[in-house]
Amino acid sequence: MKRIFTKEIVDQVDQTVKVAGWIHARRDMGKVLFFDLRDKDGLLQIVAVPQELGEENAAIASSLKPEWVVEIEGVVQKRGAKQINEKMVTGTVELLAKKVTVLNESKVPPFEIDQDSMPVNEELRLKYRYLDLRTERMAANLRARNAAFQTMRQFLAEERFIEVETPILTKGTPEGAREYLVPSRLHAGNFYVLPQAPQQFKQLLMTAGVERYYQVARCFRDEDQRGDRQPEFTQLDLEMSFVEEEDVIDVIERMLVGTVEKLYPHKKIQAKPFPRLTYAEVMKKYKTDRPDLRKNTDDPDELAFCWVVDFPFFEKDDNSNWTFTHNPFSAAKPEFKVDLMEKKNIDKIIAAQYDIVLNGFEIGGGSIRNHQPEALRSVLEILGTSDEQVKEQFGHMLEAFEFGAPPHGGIALGMDRVMAILQNEPNIREVIPFPKDGHARDLMMNAPSPMQSSALKEVHIKLDLK
Amino acid sequence: MKRIFTKEIVDQVDQTVKVAGWIHARRDMGKVLFFDLRDKDGLLQIVAVPQELGEENAAIASSLKPEWVVEIEGVVQKRGAKQINEKMVTGTVELLAKKVTVLNESKVPPFEIDQDSMPVNEELRLKYRYLDLRTERMAANLRARNAAFQTMRQFLAEERFIEVETPILTKGTPEGAREYLVPSRLHAGNFYVLPQAPQQFKQLLMTAGVERYYQVARCFRDEDQRGDRQPEFTQLDLEMSFVEEEDVIDVIERMLVGTVEKLYPHKKIQAKPFPRLTYAEVMKKYKTDRPDLRKNTDDPDELAFCWVVDFPFFEKDDNSNWTFTHNPFSAAKPEFKVDLMEKKNIDKIIAAQYDIVLNGFEIGGGSIRNHQPEALRSVLEILGTSDEQVKEQFGHMLEAFEFGAPPHGGIALGMDRVMAILQNEPNIREVIPFPKDGHARDLMMNAPSPMQSSALKEVHIKLDLK
Repeated sequence: MKRIFTKEIVDQVDQTVKVAGWIHARRDMGKVLFFDLRDKDGLLQIVAVPQELGEENAAIASSLKPEWVVEIEGVVQKRGAKQINEKMVTGTVELLAKKVTVLNESKVPPFEIDQDSMPVNEELRLKYRYLDLRTERMAANLRARNAAFQTMRQFLAEERFIEVETPILTKGTPEGAREYLVPSRLHAGNFYVLPQAPQQFKQLLMTAGVERYYQVARCFRDEDQRGDRQPEFTQLDLEMSFVEEEDVIDVIERMLVGTVEKLYPHKKIQAKPFPRLTYAEVMKKYKTDRPDLRKNTDDPDELAFCWVVDFPFFEKDDNSNWTFTHNPFSAAKPEFKVDLMEKKNIDKIIAAQYDIVLNGFEIGGGSIRNHQPEALRSVLEILGTSDEQVKEQFGHMLEAFEFGAPPHGGIALGMDRVMAILQNEPNIREVIPFPKDGHARDLMMNAPSPMQSSALKEVHIKLDLK
Repeated sequence: MKRIFTKEIVDQVDQTVKVAGWIHARRDMGKVLFFDLRDKDGLLQIVAVPQELGEENAAIASSLKPEWVVEIEGVVQKRGAKQINEKMVTGTVELLAKKVTVLNESKVPPFEIDQDSMPVNEELRLKYRYLDLRTERMAANLRARNAAFQTMRQFLAEERFIEVETPILTKGTPEGAREYLVPSRLHAGNFYVLPQAPQQFKQLLMTAGVERYYQVARCFRDEDQRGDRQPEFTQLDLEMSFVEEEDVIDVIERMLVGTVEKLYPHKKIQAKPFPRLTYAEVMKKYKTDRPDLRKNTDDPDELAFCWVVDFPFFEKDDNSNWTFTHNPFSAAKPEFKVDLMEKKNIDKIIAAQYDIVLNGFEIGGGSIRNHQPEALRSVLEILGTSDEQVKEQFGHMLEAFEFGAPPHGGIALGMDRVMAILQNEPNIREVIPFPKDGHARDLMMNAPSPMQSSALKEVHIKLDLK
């Protein structure tokens, strides 16, 4: 007999079926035992009565403990009207067990699987992540994440985007955050770098004529783990050619609205189209560039998206040198192009840059890029980048742009944050399948960990612990 | 006016439209200039006649060179019967230019974009990958890769699999290949490792009750670059719970047949269901475990899939110690379970392992796993793994299996190889958007590259070049 999922048995009343899963809960009612059997879709009530099972199977049934893995054959029966449980997908039926097989036993878990694990010590949850993910809320978070990516991919395919994979072993980028290094074995003294974002690759894909690119991209930043950060995180990365700010905003807005309306129909998007506020406005009115525009911040189903636009391109750093506020690859808004090229009124230049904010969190940002090499060169001159640095860090981009780069722009959405908000979770670790802890450690796998010195020698490094 | 894609103009005869793209080819016919304009969808013939353009636009048109980026407004006109080009999607029409705008100029490319780049020096192609990807064949490879993943994801969603992202910064696994190291800044002297495959995470996801997992997963192996290998590559990784060998084979076979029939309807799958051959058979008959079963190896549209099954679990290594042939996490076939547990007849134990072969290439492999900790422990004892190594390398897996791991098994497909075969390409570099060269270098980005010693100091390493 082929095993079926628990939720498939609802329309199989009086049929003999086989199900499998975990013992979620056990209730002893004298001679009758009731179990909740859990599989990936939910729970099913199992009724174990000695006279239906025979001696051997009855003994097995009475030995079952929570989290044991079992296979059960039995007959589906309708529940009486009073026994119907409307909260369970399978609440109109139960399975009268005829045969019970133990597929694996389980020790007593370090925390209860049939309870929300939020109050449990987080280190314990992370060490036993494979148990934490069994809980209803965490399993729902995994499914919701999959559903959101599936819906967004579908939308982007219909909009004629293609997904293109870009390398993880690459070269450093001058975007600000500290990067992870990977020593090369074949090239002694040289290092790959893990990407902060596929920024340069997506711009090169535009130069390659792809026109509409996206990627569910893994990104890496070796930053101090304050707040709600992770060493690796997931962006929905996107870039388009022959477009203006308006086109990128339009695609993202339709994608987000469509995803929320399909997967979270009970949530209310406060304003459509999303309000657009200039940086000057939000700083004056809200004293932050991530304003929370919700009318009722206690309503978990309220979603207040907004765009923040018209950011200053440059600001002075601590040493009174010009630095970029967002991204050196951004273009100036058309009306500031002359100033950018002539390096005049630098503090007044506004970038063609846009952030998207949801309920007070920045969930993404992007810009129209400088596709002409002389405009990028002008930005680098304002930033005081030396000729040597220009050549080393930007040489390949400047050269690429000399071979007919099209006008282009894009955006990246921080999908961990998006999912945390949509799932009403307080932090991104709740929606990342296997997150690191606050010290960038994987407590389940025990990473990072020491290496044998021979392994270091092979990649031409040694420890420097002074 | 909104820019439209070239292929959208076929049904816009007599309309004024705006298109944009690259000058693909130019033909001067005295006073009339013909251009092929290329966008992401293909080519469109542009007719530039001075009297239609006016002086200024005519001068711009006559200045256009290959790979310049332009925007052209004009009137769509039907071609005469003799001028119809059936090879072009837009071959029934042409655009009579009224206005020409140069969006970016281009230097002369180092190789011709309107020719197949296969004969071009590969180092040059890799350095200018953004130009190589403009060629028709390479652009088609990018689109085909996207289409294949999209079709497979759709199939797996219908089969109720969910995609789950697993970490890139993780711990080493004992699967054989050399791994890339990432020094930790926060934990001096400790290292992350880039995964060879998500093997342990997918087994932990089964332990977590996910039941049907897949992932388009990036994998990393620091191996010598002989043959057709890449430091990073893409697997379609999959794992299922409560299944036997037959179930995994069935899902993969239906996925591959469906994908080929949808996206490559002109290709012939030689035998369905795919033939199954035992390891003993293929070694006897073909002297290889990757037999090429095609009847006509010159036919590029012939696809001969087969499964190779019943591999020996163990073999002796050079030092006469037992080693695993595939994967230490595999289970023995049911009839050999007693021998495995009792460590008897070790050379005769057959693993529940299956490889899938296409046209003489191994495109994937998998197994049913040992979900009971004592069976995994028995494998490790046969392999002579020391107690300390067991604890260090397998401790978390053994512990996880003690909390009710379900029976499970899976497979991973090497998608770069699959795409190379489907696209009739001679090597995987042709179907990877940004591959490394034969020395594991990215010639476009110039990676790997030296780092400043301060950057190394921050992650507690120094060079060891002796």
